[in-house]
Amino acid sequence: MSGKLYLLPTPISKSSIDMVMPTGVIQLTRALNYFVVEELRTARRYLSLIKVGKPIDDLTFFVLNEHTSEQGIETMLAPLLGGNDVGLMSEAGVPAVADPGSLLVIAAHRKGIPVIPMVGPSSILLGLMASGLNGQNFAFVGYLPVKPDERRRRIRQLEQRSRTEGQTQIFIEAPYRNLQLFKDLLQVCSEQTLLTIAVEVTSINEQFITKTVREWKLLPPPDINKKNTVFLLLT
Amino acid sequence: MSGKLYLLPTPISKSSIDMVMPTGVIQLTRALNYFVVEELRTARRYLSLIKVGKPIDDLTFFVLNEHTSEQGIETMLAPLLGGNDVGLMSEAGVPAVADPGSLLVIAAHRKGIPVIPMVGPSSILLGLMASGLNGQNFAFVGYLPVKPDERRRRIRQLEQRSRTEGQTQIFIEAPYRNLQLFKDLLQVCSEQTLLTIAVEVTSINEQFITKTVREWKLLPPPDINKKNTVFLLLT
Repeated sequence: MSGKLYLLPTPISKSSIDMVMPTGVIQLTRALNYFVVEELRTARRYLSLIKVGKPIDDLTFFVLNEHTSEQGIETMLAPLLGGNDVGLMSEAGVPAVADPGSLLVIAAHRKGIPVIPMVGPSSILLGLMASGLNGQNFAFVGYLPVKPDERRRRIRQLEQRSRTEGQTQIFIEAPYRNLQLFKDLLQVCSEQTLLTIAVEVTSINEQFITKTVREWKLLPPPDINKKNTVFLLLT
Repeated sequence: MSGKLYLLPTPISKSSIDMVMPTGVIQLTRALNYFVVEELRTARRYLSLIKVGKPIDDLTFFVLNEHTSEQGIETMLAPLLGGNDVGLMSEAGVPAVADPGSLLVIAAHRKGIPVIPMVGPSSILLGLMASGLNGQNFAFVGYLPVKPDERRRRIRQLEQRSRTEGQTQIFIEAPYRNLQLFKDLLQVCSEQTLLTIAVEVTSINEQFITKTVREWKLLPPPDINKKNTVFLLLT
């Protein structure tokens, strides 16, 4: 019988782990010996933090990121097919959302390996909850294009979809480009469009601010430079 | 100073609460005296379950559902403006996603009331994680139309968007109509389209199955009649 693929969330900030991780999920994580991780150093640090009760060097790690080949994925399936449970962890937050983890999950389904997702923090979901924007129809579209013209065109597109479908549009940016994206949003979007920033979610400095573009324009730029931020808009 | 609006998840099945709720979130829930809830009976039952340590009848409840008026929302803001913390709870899962809770959240933002979302189970997010479908671009679109012609047209539309944008489409149905929706999906979608069902998520009977439409057609219909199910497709 094959092992199970557990999808293990990890904290997204240095805040109290008791606020973001169910104890059952931590216990389950402690019991595993095989891990597929996005970033080795972060994963090892997290496993030390939760005190797995055995030398971290005795655990087996595979790294899954955007450079992983199909053959790399096959290697990760081997312990599962050999009957071992495996934990998939993202660099932060829930795996297989806004990261390449789904490559392993779909491969597991093809082999009939049970996939079991665990509860934990997601800045996208927490940002949506706290935004006050439409939570009955929403899309997460990842990163916007980097080139200014393309990015502005994309923002217009997202605003248009939000207008015709009432669908909240959620996106992210490399933290050092947050302010530039914010500036473009104010330039491109309609005055009455609602724009939310969800900053450093779950940290003691977390902020959730929802304002119309008109209101944002009257304020100094928000403190989002180099800070993990989720952007949401609805018009 | 105003109180804070806490967004409090609740379990989505009868499974072990330790697996789905961080202890810090339960402790916070116990400490509150004001609640805005989607369904009074479910909320009272949950608060009894987690042993709030005071008579449930001493707590103040407001009901927020799709029938709530703008004036009703104003009433719920009063304790917050009076300096009391308030907990918003959905019938199950995280509030303000796939429920009308965002009406209160946006009203809180307008009054400058801090909004603080808490971690907990979401069948949409857990279904997406476990599906193996694209987690870097996805949309939740709620319920599909009930009328057969409109529903099939909507399915075609969603499949088309998934094809052109690589965007996973996520939707739900009233549980007693699940099998009819599933039948329509098999009829309408392309053979190679991936279709996931996430059934009774977090319960001991939970199931996550991802197959192509071609594969699904060779199997008996899945056991989803009257069972809470999230549907996901990607082509």
